[in-house]
Amino acid sequence: MTRIPVTILGATGVVGQRFVRRLVDHPLFEIQHLAASDRSTGKKYEDACAWRLDGAPHRGLGGERLRAAHPNEALSQVVFSALDSGPAAEIEPLFALGGALVFSNASAFRMAADVPLLVPEANADHLGLIEAQRNARGWKGAIVCNPNCTATVLVMGLAPLHEAFGIERVSMTSMQAISGAGYPGVPSLDILGNVVPFIRNEEEKVEEETPKMLGRFTNGAVEAAAFAISAMCHRVPVIEGHSEAVSVTLRGNPSAGAVAEVFRAWRGDARVSALHSAPEAPLRFHSAEDRPQARLDVEEDGGMSVHVGRVRPCALLGIKFFLLGHNTERGAAGASVLNAELAHALGYLG
Amino acid sequence: MTRIPVTILGATGVVGQRFVRRLVDHPLFEIQHLAASDRSTGKKYEDACAWRLDGAPHRGLGGERLRAAHPNEALSQVVFSALDSGPAAEIEPLFALGGALVFSNASAFRMAADVPLLVPEANADHLGLIEAQRNARGWKGAIVCNPNCTATVLVMGLAPLHEAFGIERVSMTSMQAISGAGYPGVPSLDILGNVVPFIRNEEEKVEEETPKMLGRFTNGAVEAAAFAISAMCHRVPVIEGHSEAVSVTLRGNPSAGAVAEVFRAWRGDARVSALHSAPEAPLRFHSAEDRPQARLDVEEDGGMSVHVGRVRPCALLGIKFFLLGHNTERGAAGASVLNAELAHALGYLG
Amino acid sequence: MTRIPVTILGATGVVGQRFVRRLVDHPLFEIQHLAASDRSTGKKYEDACAWRLDGAPHRGLGGERLRAAHPNEALSQVVFSALDSGPAAEIEPLFALGGALVFSNASAFRMAADVPLLVPEANADHLGLIEAQRNARGWKGAIVCNPNCTATVLVMGLAPLHEAFGIERVSMTSMQAISGAGYPGVPSLDILGNVVPFIRNEEEKVEEETPKMLGRFTNGAVEAAAFAISAMCHRVPVIEGHSEAVSVTLRGNPSAGAVAEVFRAWRGDARVSALHSAPEAPLRFHSAEDRPQARLDVEEDGGMSVHVGRVRPCALLGIKFFLLGHNTERGAAGASVLNAELAHALGYLG
Amino acid sequence: MTRIPVTILGATGVVGQRFVRRLVDHPLFEIQHLAASDRSTGKKYEDACAWRLDGAPHRGLGGERLRAAHPNEALSQVVFSALDSGPAAEIEPLFALGGALVFSNASAFRMAADVPLLVPEANADHLGLIEAQRNARGWKGAIVCNPNCTATVLVMGLAPLHEAFGIERVSMTSMQAISGAGYPGVPSLDILGNVVPFIRNEEEKVEEETPKMLGRFTNGAVEAAAFAISAMCHRVPVIEGHSEAVSVTLRGNPSAGAVAEVFRAWRGDARVSALHSAPEAPLRFHSAEDRPQARLDVEEDGGMSVHVGRVRPCALLGIKFFLLGHNTERGAAGASVLNAELAHALGYLG
Repeated sequence: MTRIPVTILGATGVVGQRFVRRLVDHPLFEIQHLAASDRSTGKKYEDACAWRLDGAPHRGLGGERLRAAHPNEALSQVVFSALDSGPAAEIEPLFALGGALVFSNASAFRMAADVPLLVPEANADHLGLIEAQRNARGWKGAIVCNPNCTATVLVMGLAPLHEAFGIERVSMTSMQAISGAGYPGVPSLDILGNVVPFIRNEEEKVEEETPKMLGRFTNGAVEAAAFAISAMCHRVPVIEGHSEAVSVTLRGNPSAGAVAEVFRAWRGDARVSALHSAPEAPLRFHSAEDRPQARLDVEEDGGMSVHVGRVRPCALLGIKFFLLGHNTERGAAGASVLNAELAHALGYLG
Repeated sequence: MTRIPVTILGATGVVGQRFVRRLVDHPLFEIQHLAASDRSTGKKYEDACAWRLDGAPHRGLGGERLRAAHPNEALSQVVFSALDSGPAAEIEPLFALGGALVFSNASAFRMAADVPLLVPEANADHLGLIEAQRNARGWKGAIVCNPNCTATVLVMGLAPLHEAFGIERVSMTSMQAISGAGYPGVPSLDILGNVVPFIRNEEEKVEEETPKMLGRFTNGAVEAAAFAISAMCHRVPVIEGHSEAVSVTLRGNPSAGAVAEVFRAWRGDARVSALHSAPEAPLRFHSAEDRPQARLDVEEDGGMSVHVGRVRPCALLGIKFFLLGHNTERGAAGASVLNAELAHALGYLG
Repeated sequence: MTRIPVTILGATGVVGQRFVRRLVDHPLFEIQHLAASDRSTGKKYEDACAWRLDGAPHRGLGGERLRAAHPNEALSQVVFSALDSGPAAEIEPLFALGGALVFSNASAFRMAADVPLLVPEANADHLGLIEAQRNARGWKGAIVCNPNCTATVLVMGLAPLHEAFGIERVSMTSMQAISGAGYPGVPSLDILGNVVPFIRNEEEKVEEETPKMLGRFTNGAVEAAAFAISAMCHRVPVIEGHSEAVSVTLRGNPSAGAVAEVFRAWRGDARVSALHSAPEAPLRFHSAEDRPQARLDVEEDGGMSVHVGRVRPCALLGIKFFLLGHNTERGAAGASVLNAELAHALGYLG
Repeated sequence: MTRIPVTILGATGVVGQRFVRRLVDHPLFEIQHLAASDRSTGKKYEDACAWRLDGAPHRGLGGERLRAAHPNEALSQVVFSALDSGPAAEIEPLFALGGALVFSNASAFRMAADVPLLVPEANADHLGLIEAQRNARGWKGAIVCNPNCTATVLVMGLAPLHEAFGIERVSMTSMQAISGAGYPGVPSLDILGNVVPFIRNEEEKVEEETPKMLGRFTNGAVEAAAFAISAMCHRVPVIEGHSEAVSVTLRGNPSAGAVAEVFRAWRGDARVSALHSAPEAPLRFHSAEDRPQARLDVEEDGGMSVHVGRVRPCALLGIKFFLLGHNTERGAAGASVLNAELAHALGYLG
């Protein structure tokens, strides 16, 4: 089968490198263009990109010439965007206008009413927004976003509960890995042996993206879920993996046992589990009293499953539990690729 | 002035060493006996105690002989106990029976109805329980406890709000330092680059001790405060300093600005601020958006002040903020010493 | 083909777990017995063993009953020993007497003149000591040791230079991972944000084992290499991977370029490269000025290759370079398994 | 007594902040000007400088206006320079020409033959180069440098041995703190749980500065010491404190005991010990087998003493030992201030 040609925007950054690693041997997609900022255009990938991942640098693409991040130079049928939010706001629409389906890791369009904000296991039908988006914007292509990494992990934990019971209130406190800030990112003097109680815009993103993702797609639009939500976000000296302490109020006040059973049984949207990048099960349930743990569990399933444990009663809200997810795979590069695989499976790639 | 002779029980452990460091030059107290477990009895302090604190080891007491932890061997008018909970349950009453005022860092008697659980700035009047305790138990002495370290930090943040507004609901997520587990304590393989979502009994202690501490002393007894409280406790790779993300519902729903003003202005019980170990102000208010931070702030005031910052609205409970406190000073050794100073000031040391 | 039954002694510890992980799907060996200390005998593996590795706990052997570490209970043709040195001194000879070929990770017999101390790529012919050992001790089986983890990494870096030039002087300063001390091992209070300049017996082991390993097997005995060697060993807050800064004087004073070329070209003993656990190349040469690095490189090749970089002139001894190796795979479990594969290939397993 | 007015160049960086902290209450010096790069000129210190040290930010100088780093704007009798090497090469001579005695932490002029490279306890007489410098350059002022932080610690350990025995060969392997790279400095993704075997230009600086510092001042010039030296430098996840594993060959091959005795007894140049910033003893000798340790020992004496331990025979070079020093106090800000105090004591400040 001919693979679908793809472009990676922002290929030199840490998320861009993860796109390269995921796509270089992908059964469905084939890397056609690597694109980067003007400063790097024309350079070899290996000269412009200090490889930060373990394993072989540049995955055999070190000799590729970087192209400008513009459809004249780097248009493909599918585009994966690892751009920062500012450039994404300008560049991604150009590719969508040019006909590409853009799978974006940036925050620029996440909250636009006509842009799908996907966690495939939870809201695959939100892809239906593409039609509204094309109508409204006159694009041949479209933009599909994956959410903020912290919000992604949270939604993976909330989705089964929202389906089974209905969520009324959510309180989430995060302990986030340094990789979430990119490279060079967090200075070591700030985080070694420390907790930093502030990540710019992070709490806002979690609080606004989560209800959209858990909203219903109906009449061609997404109606955000109606629960109250509060997030407190912190940086901790962990390399990979966002940890989240969550309390929820659920409709009908189910017991901790009933909630645990829902977590154990959840498989998410059936159309997702067969996708190439989908984990065997989207949630891994831990019964050990001190798990999951970032250093021990986060790389399981290539970082694509989310871990849940410590399900117990909460004297305040009803139920509390602990989540762990891979912020740069399930929360970034892997998420976009899974979104593209879903779009393909649902017929959006022609 | 003649200083009051004191005994340190459990002098070889990390908290015991902090007692030694605080008391060796104390204006009010003079170390009379160092006591330890049977295994160490009769040994020189420097031979039985691997000094873990920075600065000069054993603070000049390296040649002292360790005594058995029994009133026949080591009775003083004042006793500071750094014992574990099991031994404390047996040994502390013997000293209280023998006439000593025992200031205990152990959990054994904290929740006994007739034992004061003190955070002096917040509930100095709970010392009045001593009378009930002596009557009930027939002791000449008494036991006075300081709370769990995590609960201590929390109460320092809640007390001004409870006084000013009244607390209705509390949600607290902790990120706790490794020093809280003593030595050898947390294996490095468990915590380096990791978050551990479980500390045995910690959530229970916070949830039960906090309402007792913020309760009213009336008619010779303490009536626990009536708010709902939920705690989620985590270990992080920080050496010293417990961080706590807190959300509260306050009576009358004051604004974040009003809450910040209360934090800034709070000085606690006026009888405490003149005590030798009391910080200049019990709470240090931070207006920088990314403070307080364990590594930068925790040693301020010898670790005796608690830090508060990031006061902001909470879409779920009303107000959220961030606390930081020194778990082995304000949360352990320093707390007991401050309790003893208070007892002296209020006339309980004869 | 029928696989050879094997016993794992010390199966519950961290190295024992790595043995289990390496052997559970091994093409040549099949786990017959898991043995542990008396305290655990008869228990299920999953009840006696807190799994410390990532991935699925107990690798499907959680239900196995642990046997006593005695040939009456747990004899197999091949025995892998993850015992501590004290028990190893007593127990390993019983299995060798019983006919087993014991591949030991313990230090007990490493320096015995008739015991092979193997790094297969460097000294496969030392296996010839087995004959002398059997004659001298009257054993049907034999003991084969792998070296101290720090010495293993060093020998992998020195062997190609000793072959190509001859080594005259070696100075080695190590920066060692916490995993080398087992579990619970290094207390986090000792190592977080710290360097500890002492590891008991480590410098002595490196200084005595290295010349034996690089010695010549001749007339049925090993004649230790004659170079002078000095080791300085330190613990650093790294999870996996021993780093070593090495200076050497080589015969003929070759240039840094010539030394780098030797490193690049070295493949070690040709009989080793085809073995199941052997890496594609035993040494990975890094030309980047800041590599290898423990966190980025140590897991390459399942931890079985050793990394070398920063080859440059040394104004004092001649040449200096930097080594990195996986202390619990190439330096422990993987090493023993590779030794057993070599013994099989050379006909020592009948 | 009127204090001597001083300027701090580069006042907003981490070393500049340490200058502020050391000088704000100094008995001899009084801060007259804070100077910074053009970008910050005219701003309030608190607006231009994100305070990175613990304790009160800006030490009461937050309202000071920053001046341009030029003698027209910021000349004082004494200038402390925390500039980077590039700007230092241009700016420091302007102040020296203008009449200031410039105490520089930069590397720009360290190896100039007429510039003193001071470690006061070891080579106070090198200050005599000032005369040659003024003659050669026609300056009324002069530049006095403190060495690279790693070289400083090494010289503190070598000086007593060079005095007592004479040094013939030196091998040094460093494990350096992240604070040595300034702020933002080392990205956390590079160093958390890692060892980085490369610090640009560091090995070269140690190898060339050390012999100059231990050289003899004779006939108005410094003759570098003649020993061979090799340095291998590494970054480790330590916040403050450079650790150094050192091997030396000494004339006459003294025993480890004799060397330890020299370390214990050494007090350095008698004119230094009375200076305000001088530690009680320049070297602190540790007899515990696992000390000194960065986290436990580095802040002793305000970071101005250097720690030595683990003195033992080296099978290769003769003697080996372990050093620890505070890289941003003894190795930077504190060093410059001590140099200035020495210059005052020896009459160079008029």
